[in-house]
Amino acid sequence: MQNRPFGLVIHGGAGVILRRELSPALEKKYRAKLQEALDSGYAVLADGGASLDAVVAAIRVLEDSPLFNAGHGAAMNADGVCELDASIMDGRTQDAGAVAGVQHIRNPITLARDVLERTPHIMLIGDGAEAFARKLGYEFVPNQYFQTPRRRQQLALARRLERRAPDRRRLRPERVTFATIDDNKFGTVGCAALDRRGDLAAGTSTGGMTNKQYGRVGDSPIIGAGTFAKNATCALSATGHGEFFMRTVFGHNVSALMEYRGLSLARATAEGLRQIDRLGGTGGVVAIDRGGRVAMPFNTPGMYRGGHVAGRAPFVGIFGDKR
Amino acid sequence: MQNRPFGLVIHGGAGVILRRELSPALEKKYRAKLQEALDSGYAVLADGGASLDAVVAAIRVLEDSPLFNAGHGAAMNADGVCELDASIMDGRTQDAGAVAGVQHIRNPITLARDVLERTPHIMLIGDGAEAFARKLGYEFVPNQYFQTPRRRQQLALARRLERRAPDRRRLRPERVTFATIDDNKFGTVGCAALDRRGDLAAGTSTGGMTNKQYGRVGDSPIIGAGTFAKNATCALSATGHGEFFMRTVFGHNVSALMEYRGLSLARATAEGLRQIDRLGGTGGVVAIDRGGRVAMPFNTPGMYRGGHVAGRAPFVGIFGDKR
Repeated sequence: MQNRPFGLVIHGGAGVILRRELSPALEKKYRAKLQEALDSGYAVLADGGASLDAVVAAIRVLEDSPLFNAGHGAAMNADGVCELDASIMDGRTQDAGAVAGVQHIRNPITLARDVLERTPHIMLIGDGAEAFARKLGYEFVPNQYFQTPRRRQQLALARRLERRAPDRRRLRPERVTFATIDDNKFGTVGCAALDRRGDLAAGTSTGGMTNKQYGRVGDSPIIGAGTFAKNATCALSATGHGEFFMRTVFGHNVSALMEYRGLSLARATAEGLRQIDRLGGTGGVVAIDRGGRVAMPFNTPGMYRGGHVAGRAPFVGIFGDKR
Repeated sequence: MQNRPFGLVIHGGAGVILRRELSPALEKKYRAKLQEALDSGYAVLADGGASLDAVVAAIRVLEDSPLFNAGHGAAMNADGVCELDASIMDGRTQDAGAVAGVQHIRNPITLARDVLERTPHIMLIGDGAEAFARKLGYEFVPNQYFQTPRRRQQLALARRLERRAPDRRRLRPERVTFATIDDNKFGTVGCAALDRRGDLAAGTSTGGMTNKQYGRVGDSPIIGAGTFAKNATCALSATGHGEFFMRTVFGHNVSALMEYRGLSLARATAEGLRQIDRLGGTGGVVAIDRGGRVAMPFNTPGMYRGGHVAGRAPFVGIFGDKR
């Protein structure tokens, strides 16, 4: 078991993240928090723990940070409320858990894990998901806990843009471009991990898009879209303009390209993204396969990301031009 | 255009539907309503209409009938409330619309269609989905409209069974069998269609499982799980124990087996169901490909189903032993 590969990859969202727009101080904060999340997950794996536990450990760090669009610091919807989605999948059993539209749960990824383990269901939404959390004795936090000044500013900006282009909401997804959309909308956090037993797992957590329509659910809580894990192929978490990842069923598409077409992880993730690109979508993915090979392509200018595979140096990256 | 194949397939749910348990009078009612739905969709296609319109037309007939678990006559959740889910996908654009957890919309499939056409989003849930409907001027019906005496009886039965086996909720999906679950839970309605322009579309609508946990969402509104359409491969709607269709990402899996492994529609749907079967799941699917070939396999004793392809006689079936 000592020689079995293990490791994890994480992301904190993809978008127009340009070096010139990120102050050195802020860049340092992002890198430190990504490293902390990576270390939290890696410690679980190095200790012989399960990939599912590593995924939860890494994602909780990112949910708790105001830097990323998940948990504290989540994007706000058009009504100024944070609605949170998360999902997790066990590659060994292909079982999964997901929650969507929760407003008072500090760590949605943990609730998704409980849906996986403590119900015969896979997805619980809204009040029903929170009623389940209440039964389990979860602490409830006011929605204000998630809201931060930065996200309020982004919402105000998005609303101003909307007033200038009142038809934006009617645009079909393929017509929505960087010019019509604020890229901060695309943040999400996620993790994919391989443990020493060879079990893969993946999870994703998000606040969704800034100024999203009340009740909008993106790809993050959708098993097969933003999150997928199957021991025979790979584990992955996606980030980006969710609707495109839903339409191409991105997560399962990557897995199917490996399983049915024999592509490597690198080629399958690249091809999955190419299909997104062809529809006009943007985003990225972090993925790991059963051999510990990792891939983290994105078609946006940047993606907050990191990886640590046993026997190799950990790395953290933000921009497209280098790590 | 006259010689282009066109047609549609529909289902009204799969489960333990045995001839000895269905009175001749009730069987006649089911067959008549399936035929009516088939005729409604076929008329749209024969007229040169779009597959999306045919899907909506067929599904609305089934939603309006108390016989099927969708719209009027939907299954009731553990709190005695009907929560409705629906989705629709356009195989030409791979765009889609879905709603989950709505409680006051007479025809959820129509609202899913409006999400597809009138928002940049794909999925709206709960109150957010209903707020969107209100903006569009939808009539709101009381939840009692959906509730029928038969579904109340099924809920009472499910509750009695639950008291006898208090651990049932903790069973992992793979442990849930016909012995622990009431099969009436598996009803759903759906349609997949091919129009004269060669465009595929599919839709699904459901009340979910009787006695389901409040907020539980199954495969029906999940693009890639219960519903999928892509002009290059096929259009399909699934029915059954939704969690298994979500875990295997059934709809996209069938499409990927055709696209990446080159299987025929018949072989791809059979293989998709075999993977469900291996996890212990049950259900069925109706599917049509760009050539007008249809498949409707199921691994339950019966499935309410029908199909009508131009140039061939329409058919309607219920049991496993014959049409």
